[in-house]
Amino acid sequence: MIEALSERRAALWKEFIEGSRFARCVLEEDFDARLIAIYLVETYHYVVHNPRHQALVATRDVDIHPNYRKFCLAHADEETGHELMALNDARSLGVFGKCLALPAALHSTEMLNAYLYFISLNGNPLRRLGYSFWAEDSYQHFKPLLERTVRHLGLVSSQLTFLIAHSNIDQEHSRDVVETLSLYCRTPEDWAAVQQVMEGSLRLQFAMLEEIHDSYREMVRGERNRYSALLPH
Amino acid sequence: MIEALSERRAALWKEFIEGSRFARCVLEEDFDARLIAIYLVETYHYVVHNPRHQALVATRDVDIHPNYRKFCLAHADEETGHELMALNDARSLGVFGKCLALPAALHSTEMLNAYLYFISLNGNPLRRLGYSFWAEDSYQHFKPLLERTVRHLGLVSSQLTFLIAHSNIDQEHSRDVVETLSLYCRTPEDWAAVQQVMEGSLRLQFAMLEEIHDSYREMVRGERNRYSALLPH
Amino acid sequence: MIEALSERRAALWKEFIEGSRFARCVLEEDFDARLIAIYLVETYHYVVHNPRHQALVATRDVDIHPNYRKFCLAHADEETGHELMALNDARSLGVFGKCLALPAALHSTEMLNAYLYFISLNGNPLRRLGYSFWAEDSYQHFKPLLERTVRHLGLVSSQLTFLIAHSNIDQEHSRDVVETLSLYCRTPEDWAAVQQVMEGSLRLQFAMLEEIHDSYREMVRGERNRYSALLPH
Amino acid sequence: MIEALSERRAALWKEFIEGSRFARCVLEEDFDARLIAIYLVETYHYVVHNPRHQALVATRDVDIHPNYRKFCLAHADEETGHELMALNDARSLGVFGKCLALPAALHSTEMLNAYLYFISLNGNPLRRLGYSFWAEDSYQHFKPLLERTVRHLGLVSSQLTFLIAHSNIDQEHSRDVVETLSLYCRTPEDWAAVQQVMEGSLRLQFAMLEEIHDSYREMVRGERNRYSALLPH
Repeated sequence: MIEALSERRAALWKEFIEGSRFARCVLEEDFDARLIAIYLVETYHYVVHNPRHQALVATRDVDIHPNYRKFCLAHADEETGHELMALNDARSLGVFGKCLALPAALHSTEMLNAYLYFISLNGNPLRRLGYSFWAEDSYQHFKPLLERTVRHLGLVSSQLTFLIAHSNIDQEHSRDVVETLSLYCRTPEDWAAVQQVMEGSLRLQFAMLEEIHDSYREMVRGERNRYSALLPH
Repeated sequence: MIEALSERRAALWKEFIEGSRFARCVLEEDFDARLIAIYLVETYHYVVHNPRHQALVATRDVDIHPNYRKFCLAHADEETGHELMALNDARSLGVFGKCLALPAALHSTEMLNAYLYFISLNGNPLRRLGYSFWAEDSYQHFKPLLERTVRHLGLVSSQLTFLIAHSNIDQEHSRDVVETLSLYCRTPEDWAAVQQVMEGSLRLQFAMLEEIHDSYREMVRGERNRYSALLPH
Repeated sequence: MIEALSERRAALWKEFIEGSRFARCVLEEDFDARLIAIYLVETYHYVVHNPRHQALVATRDVDIHPNYRKFCLAHADEETGHELMALNDARSLGVFGKCLALPAALHSTEMLNAYLYFISLNGNPLRRLGYSFWAEDSYQHFKPLLERTVRHLGLVSSQLTFLIAHSNIDQEHSRDVVETLSLYCRTPEDWAAVQQVMEGSLRLQFAMLEEIHDSYREMVRGERNRYSALLPH
Repeated sequence: MIEALSERRAALWKEFIEGSRFARCVLEEDFDARLIAIYLVETYHYVVHNPRHQALVATRDVDIHPNYRKFCLAHADEETGHELMALNDARSLGVFGKCLALPAALHSTEMLNAYLYFISLNGNPLRRLGYSFWAEDSYQHFKPLLERTVRHLGLVSSQLTFLIAHSNIDQEHSRDVVETLSLYCRTPEDWAAVQQVMEGSLRLQFAMLEEIHDSYREMVRGERNRYSALLPH
């Protein structure tokens, strides 16, 4: 089952990398640091919620194995504060203006958050693992985009701690997620619930990346949007 | 502001009707009652939550005008039980098999529910009106689809109470929503929040209609999916 | 069953009136308007939550008759804003100082709120009716205390709208509550759950009245407490 | 401040031990294992909620130091499953009958749970530490009661793991709680909020112990109550 899940995950990433405006821009086109700043601020906007909805799984009044509750709480503990890495990285790019108030999350980012709270609080309590399954493993898929970004913008690794340093932490988490899936998913319904959330939340992240790209393009065209005050250029 | 909101709503519906697989199928192609049954069951799956997230707005611990709280509660009261109309209509089509257990909501229906709970519980408490603004007014936009359905399947109006009888109730609600928006939306931020939720939730409903269509097509092609047990044909 | 519930309610009130420091003070001793002001502010502090926890019953994801959901929502609607009557009455007594910021709720008031949220969100969804059963009927039991207060402090009825005008509204509510209990309570477990909440929440209100009295006595003795800024005397 | 809090805690325990029916019974009178079984089942009923309301503090959408969030999550993780110790101990006493279904929590136990959920979700997010401040340190105060129980009933320590083995774990927790209070409580309001919750929740535990005693006495007198099926004697 894990293998089938991995294959589906790889196929979704491949489909995204090949068809996405965001990926094409980062891999092949010209762009400036504002694109990466928007990406990092939106990343802040969803990562800040990770420990909260993760912990909510453990507070549910349904039949949950105590050790799975413990996994959820320990995992929530470890994820706390990671959003600050993304925010520090965004600041380090040197494109923030005088007004440092972050704009509200983009619509697609809010959708991702909405979905993750909903699936954490409703339905099969194991299904949030479908989100962790791709989220803790996304670095390998991001690697080509990361490398082009570093090269194209002349960055150093201390400016991208969320993507670089964080990836080491997440490799261990990724193994924990696979082990937890193997331990607690018992029925075909469990696996189907996990797969639906994996696919649903990954597609929402892809939609977020597209909206990030489109917001950046608006700024390049000189249109005002919610990022204009933060990134006056 | 109401006018700008109405124009945007009309433009979104137009874009949907013109580009949608669901709309083309219902307006121009051949289909059987299973398509409408799936539509009604998914409608049940989101309508059953309407009074719940509507009431949650009134329970929030933020500064809300008492009369807007009362609007939310009265509106939640009126919406309670409407999902049963959709379910009765689905039953009346004569396509349910022996197993009457409803399948779980489709992914896009669950996304709509997730989004509506999230925006009801977070952010500007007025913004849920953006959902009511289109939901209570959707009958005029559905009218051509409804007429073709009645003609094509040879239905009588008692088989589509949710869409027909309900539309009269909703016309009054629609006026209430406009009046409530006029009374309580004061700032550009209020109107922007309402518009974002109108657009966001309407697009999610459109996505739901496309997934309904695609699920129906799977069944036509003889593929098994979550509706196979309910609609054995 | 309703009769048994009524008898228990009467017995609890009798026990309270006979043994309570608050009741003895109001019925027989000397006191000034600060006692009533504290009573009205604490009343504000719990009444403001009534529509919220009442509405939460209707949002629960458990098997609840649609008409009981509608009762909860309609009742929450009617209760909205009643806390403002208590606050206006408190202001009309002429004992507020310059600082109008309300002190935080007393411990026993907070306990009452905590209990009402908990029983609204957990366990038998009918059991909150045990609270409404006494709350909508408390005016007759308060009547002697009310009359002595009016006499002793020389008040007019427009200064005690919450206790006087409100009592007419609540008589109707009280009949609704009895009817709702009769309609939806079916099993001995239902009735036992209702009775436990009636007794539990009524005892918490009695504890609140005692703490109100004790806070007033502290002020008479010249001790500082959380009401000193509001009621400088 | 910690010292003042400790003194108040000691004074409350002293007042309880001296005036309590439960304490007098355990320290001086005759009793059988049913009293301890009821105590352990009610302990199960509140301890099972500890990790849930502890984790909820960390999910709140208010300004909370990331490290205090991490404390809450790590502490919730450690508390998970401790209720099973209390349940196993209850079983080991050999007084359970054939029907093993636990009775619902006593009213005072439910009040304690209600209060802990409420203060975890509302008001000053630090104030739940007031509960941990006494809960992780209660073993020294329980020690004389524990020793008489062991002597009077002829128990071995493996029958009271919750009270004996658990006490070692909690000594470390107790130090963590003191350290966390020192780190994050900054204002007089923080300390007052912590003290109010310490006192409020400790008094609720004392009320629970009295109701446990009274329930046991009912059984001794041959009256039926909710424990009659579990402890038929």
